[in-house]
Amino acid sequence: MKEQIWQQILEVRKRTPLVHNITNYVVMNNTANALLAAGASPVMAHAHPEIQDMVGIAGALVINIGTLDEYWVKSMELAAAKANELGKPWVLDPVGAGATSYRNEVIKTLLALRPAVIRGNASEIISVAGSYTGVTKGVDSLHESKDAISSSMNLTSQTGSVICISGAEDIVIQELKTAKLSNGHPLMARVTGLGCTASALTGAFVAINPEDPFLASVSAMALLGIAGELAAQKAVGPGSLQLYLLDELYNLSEEVFMKRVRIEESNEG
Amino acid sequence: MKEQIWQQILEVRKRTPLVHNITNYVVMNNTANALLAAGASPVMAHAHPEIQDMVGIAGALVINIGTLDEYWVKSMELAAAKANELGKPWVLDPVGAGATSYRNEVIKTLLALRPAVIRGNASEIISVAGSYTGVTKGVDSLHESKDAISSSMNLTSQTGSVICISGAEDIVIQELKTAKLSNGHPLMARVTGLGCTASALTGAFVAINPEDPFLASVSAMALLGIAGELAAQKAVGPGSLQLYLLDELYNLSEEVFMKRVRIEESNEG
Amino acid sequence: MKEQIWQQILEVRKRTPLVHNITNYVVMNNTANALLAAGASPVMAHAHPEIQDMVGIAGALVINIGTLDEYWVKSMELAAAKANELGKPWVLDPVGAGATSYRNEVIKTLLALRPAVIRGNASEIISVAGSYTGVTKGVDSLHESKDAISSSMNLTSQTGSVICISGAEDIVIQELKTAKLSNGHPLMARVTGLGCTASALTGAFVAINPEDPFLASVSAMALLGIAGELAAQKAVGPGSLQLYLLDELYNLSEEVFMKRVRIEESNEG
Repeated sequence: MKEQIWQQILEVRKRTPLVHNITNYVVMNNTANALLAAGASPVMAHAHPEIQDMVGIAGALVINIGTLDEYWVKSMELAAAKANELGKPWVLDPVGAGATSYRNEVIKTLLALRPAVIRGNASEIISVAGSYTGVTKGVDSLHESKDAISSSMNLTSQTGSVICISGAEDIVIQELKTAKLSNGHPLMARVTGLGCTASALTGAFVAINPEDPFLASVSAMALLGIAGELAAQKAVGPGSLQLYLLDELYNLSEEVFMKRVRIEESNEG
Repeated sequence: MKEQIWQQILEVRKRTPLVHNITNYVVMNNTANALLAAGASPVMAHAHPEIQDMVGIAGALVINIGTLDEYWVKSMELAAAKANELGKPWVLDPVGAGATSYRNEVIKTLLALRPAVIRGNASEIISVAGSYTGVTKGVDSLHESKDAISSSMNLTSQTGSVICISGAEDIVIQELKTAKLSNGHPLMARVTGLGCTASALTGAFVAINPEDPFLASVSAMALLGIAGELAAQKAVGPGSLQLYLLDELYNLSEEVFMKRVRIEESNEG
Repeated sequence: MKEQIWQQILEVRKRTPLVHNITNYVVMNNTANALLAAGASPVMAHAHPEIQDMVGIAGALVINIGTLDEYWVKSMELAAAKANELGKPWVLDPVGAGATSYRNEVIKTLLALRPAVIRGNASEIISVAGSYTGVTKGVDSLHESKDAISSSMNLTSQTGSVICISGAEDIVIQELKTAKLSNGHPLMARVTGLGCTASALTGAFVAINPEDPFLASVSAMALLGIAGELAAQKAVGPGSLQLYLLDELYNLSEEVFMKRVRIEESNEG
């Protein structure tokens, strides 16, 4: 699988897919820069009169509910529906799932619009799986990635979406396939929006390979995890980590990738 | 007081308070990163259907009017009212006070919702004190921190809020208590949003110590000032300063803190 | 002309013009920091109840449609009309021109409000010139700066605006005057919002010299291009480039400027 992932990274660099992001204010700059550093082309747009046209020219859509409000939720619905109509893949990042009942309702509506991938931290994924059946959790619940595996199993079988749980260990699940990645560094949690960056990069990979959102998710997590651990080696704190991460996304070579990537697959199907 | 401040810094790192920010678009990323670097946990949310729920799970609220509009002003009002109802402290950052009559009206409304702390530069504080009694100033008036002391005295006695004037010298005033801090570096003024960062950090400190907003304000200014001057020593310009500042917030040790902190207290009560 | 440009750079540093930006969420932080690093004073404001007051106190206005929506478009119209009324110059950055018909309509409306300068990449400028006569292009069309010269000739003669095409080569056109600048570095294209930064800096220069938007545009492109190539020499990727760029904007000296600036003028009038 490692060679396959590296090929995906090269394809993004070669094809510069246009990724349409409807994302939160906090991370827009980071995620645009991460997409550019990885070789993709970001566009941010949310206006109702143009949102469907923008989905039409993009290769994939990323919806992140971090700083949602009524207008933006409508944008998200219009965009996801259009993506479905056009057969384009979209990625859901359910930021803060479980924190408020409004977020849970919005997530429910968006789940019905069939995301190709749902990426969140363990607490968010557990909450999304719960909100799907009417049970919600608070934002402060802290879980390890493995705590969200059974929730993810339910969620993938109910929705057909690939579920990507990010954390110290990243776990990607689709139906009976699972991949576990153990790249990355704890300091990454002290930089805002690296989860959102993971979702944005997933959008780039799913744009070039809409048939295989599992591989797309794994590729995004591998690329970000390795860039993050390389950046952490040089960084003296979260400020320099954020900066070096972009440099590493841009410069990552096959040799370093192959030496670094730590992935375990299983298929119980 | 220095030992007390250092204890507050350690408490933030230990307790990772959730700070709810309703802030401006320009600085959202910076302030989120500064809170994370200092050990706190930021959340940005403004949607009317969830704003009260979010205040409910946060330890403190920070309201910054930098890029206000009608929807956001309503969010601010709902959130501040809820904070009062729940007895949670909130911090007001009156960005651009005096620049337009709309800002002055909004500030008046927010002052009535009893912020625990009001933090601004000297011109903003003078304007807030003035708008409170119906007199306004323009945005271009430039003052030193000490020029705002008498305005702050009026403002603290009228509102009961702690007033924090930031600048080359930072002055914190509550009723008859005053603290003057002389950390920081002139280059900090060339990085956008470091005042907003000061307000966000004040939110973290007031979250762990809602009984003492004076100590919380002083702690935030000491931490930011020292991190800023350490960053300026390494920086070659405002770009690298912004980056190193986050590293220094994260890495600051007791030894360096104690050696660096410059604070003078007085109590005329 | 080189001496004239350097004088403009010094004037911005000396007079710290207030530049009012109605810009997109992705780049607000960058453009504010670039303005501060160059010596100007940024303000971001879009609320209808204050937008005209803010134009009143600013030296120039910059309108960037990157993340437009109905509310913001109204803000832009109110602000540009007020700038005209007050005789203040404004800069239009038609981000994503041609990508959607909504953008094209908005651009048409804004063109009627007579921007002093229109700055975009070659594809955007070609699209703006086209939308002006009813023909539009898609966002993915890639052109070199020189491909947009004849469009720019039409656009400047129809609108009276200075047209600034940015790219590997930057070309500034007003009526029969042309300047070509060949500073900059390819890595700059991998950092989000450097075009938007060019527009923001143009706002600073046109604020101190509203009589000569041609010189203002050339000055902005020269400053940014040289700062960018200096930053690229030190950078190891787009993350460090973004950082060093701010340092170089702040530190640029006359000696380095004079040695680096590469500009060709022609006047066919």
